[in-house]
Amino acid sequence: MSFAEAASSQVAQRSRLRVGVLISGSGRTLRDLLDDIDSGVIDLDVRLILASTPNASGLQYADFRGIPVDVLEHTEFLHGAEYSEAIFNMCREHEVQVVVMAGFSIHLAIPEDFQNRVVSSHPALAPAFTGRTLYGRRIHEAVLASGVKVSGCTVFFVDKSYNRGPVILQRPVPVFVNDTVEQLEGRILQEERFAFRDALQLLAEDRIRVEGRRVRTLPRPLGGA
Amino acid sequence: MSFAEAASSQVAQRSRLRVGVLISGSGRTLRDLLDDIDSGVIDLDVRLILASTPNASGLQYADFRGIPVDVLEHTEFLHGAEYSEAIFNMCREHEVQVVVMAGFSIHLAIPEDFQNRVVSSHPALAPAFTGRTLYGRRIHEAVLASGVKVSGCTVFFVDKSYNRGPVILQRPVPVFVNDTVEQLEGRILQEERFAFRDALQLLAEDRIRVEGRRVRTLPRPLGGA
Repeated sequence: MSFAEAASSQVAQRSRLRVGVLISGSGRTLRDLLDDIDSGVIDLDVRLILASTPNASGLQYADFRGIPVDVLEHTEFLHGAEYSEAIFNMCREHEVQVVVMAGFSIHLAIPEDFQNRVVSSHPALAPAFTGRTLYGRRIHEAVLASGVKVSGCTVFFVDKSYNRGPVILQRPVPVFVNDTVEQLEGRILQEERFAFRDALQLLAEDRIRVEGRRVRTLPRPLGGA
Repeated sequence: MSFAEAASSQVAQRSRLRVGVLISGSGRTLRDLLDDIDSGVIDLDVRLILASTPNASGLQYADFRGIPVDVLEHTEFLHGAEYSEAIFNMCREHEVQVVVMAGFSIHLAIPEDFQNRVVSSHPALAPAFTGRTLYGRRIHEAVLASGVKVSGCTVFFVDKSYNRGPVILQRPVPVFVNDTVEQLEGRILQEERFAFRDALQLLAEDRIRVEGRRVRTLPRPLGGA
C-alpha cells in the first residue's frame, strides 16, 4: 500500500457513518440520538431527517442543527412501494449509508442496496409479540394480558418480515403483575434507548456482520486512531 | 376460634405441601429437587415419584429415600387421556396436592381438580419457541437459528395449551452468536433449576394466586412459625 493509499484509507476509517433518520411523531428517539452524538457516545453523521408528517414535533430538533429535513407524507403516494422508493431515493441523494427508523410508524419495502442497512427497534423480545396487529401500547397490553414475566426490546435490521428481521441486540426487562401499560412501557423505553445506542455505535464502528439471520458483533480492534 | 381449632390450624399451616414428581429420563431435575429439599431450600413432601419408563435412571434417587415409586408406561394405554387419568389417579391415591413435571416428556390432559396444580418448565421464554414440534435440543437449535440474543426459561402451570400455560416465573438468559446447542442448553439449565426451585418454594408457602393467565406472587407474611 502506498503512502497516499494508506493516508486515504485512514481518512476513510475516520469518516463517520452517514445516517438518515426517519421519524413520525415526537422525535423522542431522535432527540436521544442527537444527545448521544453531541456527548460523543455515538459517532454518527446525521445527513438527513425525514418525517412522515409535517406534524412530527421531532422536526424541531433538526432545525437548529442545520441538518437537512424533509417531509414525505404517505398519503401523497398511491402504493407503499412508491413511498418506500421515494424515501430511499432521498437517502441515496444524501449519501446515507444506514437508515435509522426512530419511531417511524410506516412499514417500508427495503430495496436491495439497503438490505441490512435499515435499523429499527421493537419494544418486546422478538419473536414474541411481533404480530402485525401489535403496535404502540397494544404490544404492552398483549404482554400484560399474556401473563409473561419477561419482556424487553429488540433492535433489528428491517426486512420484509415486518419486525422479525435479523436481531442486532436484545435486552430483557421484567414484567410485574401489577404493572400498568404505562409502567411497563416506561421501563422498556429506558432499555430500548441503551440498546439502540449500542447497536448504532457498533454500526458506526463497522463491527456488525450479518450472516443469514444471525448477527455477529466483532470485537473492538486493538490500537486505532 | 377455639384453642383446639387454632392449634389444628397451626398444624395445618406447618404441614408441608404434598407433591408427586413425574420423570422420564435421567432425573436431573428430580435430583436437584431432592437436594434442595434436603438442604432446606424447598419445603416439600415428595409423596410419589412416577416414571414414564422403567429405564428412567432418575428412579435410583427415589429408592434409598423410601419414596413410593411407580412406572406407568405410555404404551400400555390406548389413548393419551387414559394415560393421564391413570397418572392423576395415582396422585390422588397418594394425596398429592401439586404435580411436578420434572423433565417428563409426555403431554398430559389435566383433570379439573388438578388445574393450576401441575407445574412444568420450558427452556425458552414462552410464548417464544413453544411450538409442539420443539422439544429437547430442538428448542435451542431453533433459538440459535433465529438469531435472537435473549432466551431463557419459563416455569408454568400446565394446561391444554401444551407449554403456554399461566407463567409462574421466567428468567432471561443471553444467547451468544458462537453458542453451540450444548453451551446454550447448559446456560439455560442453570437458570431453570433456580426458577423451578423458586416457583416450588412459592407454592410450598402458598404464595401463588392464578388470575386468568396472570400469576400473582404474594409477599412473604410477616412473623410466622
